[in-house]
Amino acid sequence: MEFSPIGVIHTPHTDPKGTPIQPIGAVGIEGVIELKEEYVEALQDLDGFSHIILLYVFHRSTGYSLKVTPYLETQQRGLFATRYPARPNPIGLSVVRLSGIKNNMVYVLDVDMLDGTPLLDIKPFIPEADNRENTRIGWLANRVTRMRKAKSDGRSD
Amino acid sequence: MEFSPIGVIHTPHTDPKGTPIQPIGAVGIEGVIELKEEYVEALQDLDGFSHIILLYVFHRSTGYSLKVTPYLETQQRGLFATRYPARPNPIGLSVVRLSGIKNNMVYVLDVDMLDGTPLLDIKPFIPEADNRENTRIGWLANRVTRMRKAKSDGRSD
Repeated sequence: MEFSPIGVIHTPHTDPKGTPIQPIGAVGIEGVIELKEEYVEALQDLDGFSHIILLYVFHRSTGYSLKVTPYLETQQRGLFATRYPARPNPIGLSVVRLSGIKNNMVYVLDVDMLDGTPLLDIKPFIPEADNRENTRIGWLANRVTRMRKAKSDGRSD
Repeated sequence: MEFSPIGVIHTPHTDPKGTPIQPIGAVGIEGVIELKEEYVEALQDLDGFSHIILLYVFHRSTGYSLKVTPYLETQQRGLFATRYPARPNPIGLSVVRLSGIKNNMVYVLDVDMLDGTPLLDIKPFIPEADNRENTRIGWLANRVTRMRKAKSDGRSD
């Protein structure tokens, strides 16, 4: 299956090391999406939404392992039970705040992806469709409170 | 960019027409992911999570338009302000409930994708990272309550 970037995400995170591991650990950090000109018309009406979902490529990941020691954890876990970036299809998902749109430039907040990240899709965040309550989160249960402060240590596989 | 399915999603939705447009419109509908054998080890620890995020290919979509008339709406909207399936990179995103795992078979509930959908990734749903409050949802504001009942009319582009 062949996918092609619709644009590129510019962020202040030029080094994997020290990059927040989730948007909730990147509150207020500004980024800008440079959308390919050919898609500008598809941005219409997006400005009515406060939050957008970005699907993008973990372009600095190389290879993957089926068992990984994720951030916030000291023992190995199954890859699909983690948000680890090195995956069979290294697609990242982040919900960011939309702060403005000007021509093909989409300004966002709370960015946790690396500078130069290839963007695959923009979707509007719809709380009625996307939020979930009454959840269980397995191995993360006692660790999730540390997610806001956790930074990447630069590992890529 | 080349991506390859990690498995296939089997659901009761064999005809695009009548398929729920979101998991919240598909509550209790059972599906099963047939994961490729080579990835089984990566499922370890996933059973601790009540909800999982599926990224998959809208494999029946053909082409795309920059402006579309989405479900729940009568006028055209910018494609990226909708969850319309026909997109430059036709990647779908659904949060489903996990009901069981047996070898390479992952049983899920609330499936809104078509039978035979190629699966790209499984991620654990983490409410602390994925839920958002205090949102604005633009053109959907007066229409979102109809999302639970809306079904596809079979359109594919």
